[in-house]
Formats: sequence, structure tokens, C-alpha cells
Amino acid sequence: MNATWIDGKPGEALSLSDRGLHYGDGLFETLPVSVSRLALLDLHLERLREGCTRLGFAAPEEELLRRELAAAAAGQKRAVLKLMVTRGSGGRGYRPPGEARVTRILLRYAWPDYPQAWQETGVALRVCKTRLGTNPVLAGLKHLNRLEQVMARSEWPENDPFQEGLMLDGEGAVIEGTMTNVFCSPAEGRLLTPDLSRAGVAGVMRRHLLQAAENAGVRVEIRRLTLDELLDQREVFVCNSIIGVWPVSLIGGHAYPIGPLTRLAQGWSQE
Amino acid sequence: MNATWIDGKPGEALSLSDRGLHYGDGLFETLPVSVSRLALLDLHLERLREGCTRLGFAAPEEELLRRELAAAAAGQKRAVLKLMVTRGSGGRGYRPPGEARVTRILLRYAWPDYPQAWQETGVALRVCKTRLGTNPVLAGLKHLNRLEQVMARSEWPENDPFQEGLMLDGEGAVIEGTMTNVFCSPAEGRLLTPDLSRAGVAGVMRRHLLQAAENAGVRVEIRRLTLDELLDQREVFVCNSIIGVWPVSLIGGHAYPIGPLTRLAQGWSQE
Repeated sequence: MNATWIDGKPGEALSLSDRGLHYGDGLFETLPVSVSRLALLDLHLERLREGCTRLGFAAPEEELLRRELAAAAAGQKRAVLKLMVTRGSGGRGYRPPGEARVTRILLRYAWPDYPQAWQETGVALRVCKTRLGTNPVLAGLKHLNRLEQVMARSEWPENDPFQEGLMLDGEGAVIEGTMTNVFCSPAEGRLLTPDLSRAGVAGVMRRHLLQAAENAGVRVEIRRLTLDELLDQREVFVCNSIIGVWPVSLIGGHAYPIGPLTRLAQGWSQE
Repeated sequence: MNATWIDGKPGEALSLSDRGLHYGDGLFETLPVSVSRLALLDLHLERLREGCTRLGFAAPEEELLRRELAAAAAGQKRAVLKLMVTRGSGGRGYRPPGEARVTRILLRYAWPDYPQAWQETGVALRVCKTRLGTNPVLAGLKHLNRLEQVMARSEWPENDPFQEGLMLDGEGAVIEGTMTNVFCSPAEGRLLTPDLSRAGVAGVMRRHLLQAAENAGVRVEIRRLTLDELLDQREVFVCNSIIGVWPVSLIGGHAYPIGPLTRLAQGWSQE
């Protein structure tokens, strides 16, 4: 981490009464910076605004966020920005205070140096034992309640042969990776991605790929998907804003070829 | 809030890299102070230690916590202490860092002045629309991922005739109140409380009442309980460390008398 801002000012500390800490009462966005430029910024800001609406607090002013993000990105060749927005400070108790003032927390991190081979020859996925709880009220949101991901990610050590973990819900439906969304191809020219109306984070890269697929005339089905079905797919890939698209070469003991739709999605991810 | 400490020192601000903020990666305890004394301290420290074990990080040294809590309680006639313990600071990413150093956050609040009538003539419960997701990995823990409670508590305004909200899981089983555990009496001399192995917070007052009931020879069944079943009970009450026991006089439109087991539990809660 090489720089931090709070409410737009350089700073390193958060009030101990912030509801982001007490309850995870907030949202976050993770944005890649490339030569001062922020990719998919509009989609990130749109998701953040939608998330604030669903949690029931006023989103920070969009122009303000744009200015602060641009300032943090300026002069950076390659970096990651993490923006957290919380419901602000409050007294004790779950009930949101009447006149909460949202807190903006911005952190700039070094670019993570994932091996280039993961883009080219794919990654191996572990099937996590930790399941995702289902809750339509929170599903899709990139909120700050992320213990399920922490527990899932704790299941395997960093030097293990798995690069990502697949998370299922309590009924065995495939929802997402610990830090990625999942796509697969059930047939030539078609894509499929899990429904996230009951669990999971609706990623910005997922949204971008859905739009790109539509523009390209590739049909994408969004529905419930079991692990057995996933193992039957022709191609599988995972995506997020930072990594773009990683082909999946292995889930458990099941190997996949890297097919044309994965390569197409890799192209879209860079548009 | 009239005083705050971080890692044992007076302080008001948390590092922006703390995993408590980023992921809700931590636990908390809420303890009542009465004339400098902390009630059920052993049970609180035991639950905290168990929670740390389940989340996979080393609990703070118990003697240290006892000293810090006692110092915060000293000289207070009536107050509430909230102790949060997080996995500490870390870089970006869900994976817990190898050598995390746990953060201790302690806040002292004024005693909440709930009307005495709530103890005597009972409270009315709303049935919340927000459901609890189920996840055996996290169930029972008083962790910092509390958006479900925040959303549930947002469903009704403070001046509404409801004093607490009842939360069900996705299948309609009664789990708990937004800030309390639930007990009921299905028959003379018997108690029943929901199973919390799939959702909910296993409260310290709940644990204390279970022990007291056992000591008194009152049989308590712990099992799945539907809302319909709850409406059929002879008596219902809710409990936590701060309020003790509140009789429930109304759930939705259904009225309950305040019976002998509720009064017995009120006595136990003060032991």
C-alpha cells in the first residue's frame, strides 16, 4: 500500500466509530490503473451507486469520486485503487443513524504481479469447502461483509497449485470464485454464467463481458449451475477487474481445453 | 461514546489497512458495566476465544483483555463496553497474512436507557423481512459481518411500536432477534430455543440462561423452530447481555401472557 486518503484528504486512520468497522456497513470497488487511466470506471461508479441505494444510504457525489480517483491514479504506470464507502460514524446499535455522513476511503496498492502464464495456459481451481450463504437482500453487492471469502481463501496456502477457489452455495450451486466471477461455454458460440440473485458479487468485469457478448451476438445464459454441470462444460474461465480473464485449465481433477470463447472474452476484457 | 482504546492505549483511530474494516474479519463482545463490575466476563472471554479459534487466528492474551476491560470499567456506575478483536492489518486480498497481529479495539458507551416497562410488561416484536443467510462455518459467531442485522433494523423507525425484530432464515425457521436470542416455553416447566448451528449469534446471555436452567432442573430443548410453532408457545422472551431478559407480549398480531418461566429467566439473568 503506498498511499491512502480518507474523505479526499491524505490520511491513514479511520474513526473507531465508523460503521464500516463495526458492521461491515459499506461497499467497495477495486479498480485497475494503467498509465494513469482507470478501466471501466463508469461501470464501477454505477455499481457503487446501485449498492448505496440497496443499502439505503446516499452515494457520495459522483463528480467528487471521479476527481479523487483520477488524482490517485495520476502518474501511476500500473496500480490498484480500492475505494471503500461506508455509512459513516454512528452510535452503538445496528440501526443506521438518521443523518449519517458517508465515509470515503481510498487506498492505492502496487500492481499484483500474477504470472503471465495464468493468462496464457490457465489456472487450476480448488472447490472450496466454505459455502456461500444465500440472501437476496445482499446478493450481488460488493459489500464489506467478506468473511466467507476470507474463510474460503484460508483453505489453501499461497504456494499451493491452486490459483483460485470455486465457491458453491449451501445447495451445491456454483456461484463464483473467491475473488472472481465464473463463465463457461456449454456449446459452440454460447456462454453461461451463474445467477447471482441469491448469493455472490456481481462483478464489474462480469457486467462488461455480458455487454460485450451481447454486442458480439454471443448468447449468454444466466441461470443456476451445479458443480456437475460445470464439470461438463467445454470451456471455463474466471474474471475480475484486475486480472481480466483467466482461462481455467483444471477444476479438482477435471481438465479443460482453452477454447475460442475464452480467447474472445480475453479480448473483450481489454476493450 | 465517551472513551476509546486501541491495543490498550487511548486512541480514536484505526489503521486503514485493518482487516476488520476491509472484510469484517474479526469478532466483538458487548459487556454491561455495573458499579465497575463486568457481568458474565468469563463467558464473554470464552466465546471470544472460541470465535478466534474458529476464524483461525490467535486470541489476544486473556489476562491482558481482563486488565484492559477492568480499567475501562473502573469507576463507571453504569456503562457498556464493546470489545472488537480483528485479524489486524494486511495487504490487499482475502487471504489472511501469515504473521497477522490481532487488533484490540475497546469502546465505552453510555448505558442505554430502555424503559423499565419493557422488563415488566414486555415488548412487541416485528417479524423482519430481511432473512438470515445460513452458513455453518460462521453460524454462532459474534463476528463483524453484520449487514443482515443492519438491514433488518432499518425496516422500522425508532419510534415505531416494535422494540425488537425477529429474524428467520431463508426457510422460515426462527433464529433470533436482531440483537437478542429467543426463548419460548412450549409446556409447563419447559423451555425451547432455536438451534444456531446454521445461522445466528450464540449469545452469552443465552449460554448463561441455558446453564441456569440446567442448574434449576428446567429442561431446555434446542432445535429448529418455525414461526407458526413460535406463535403457539405459552411464553416467549428475548435476551442479551445488556438488556437481560425482556418478556415478549406481542409478535405480529399474536399476544402472549408473561408467564412463570419468563420471570424465572429474569431472575437468572441477574445472577
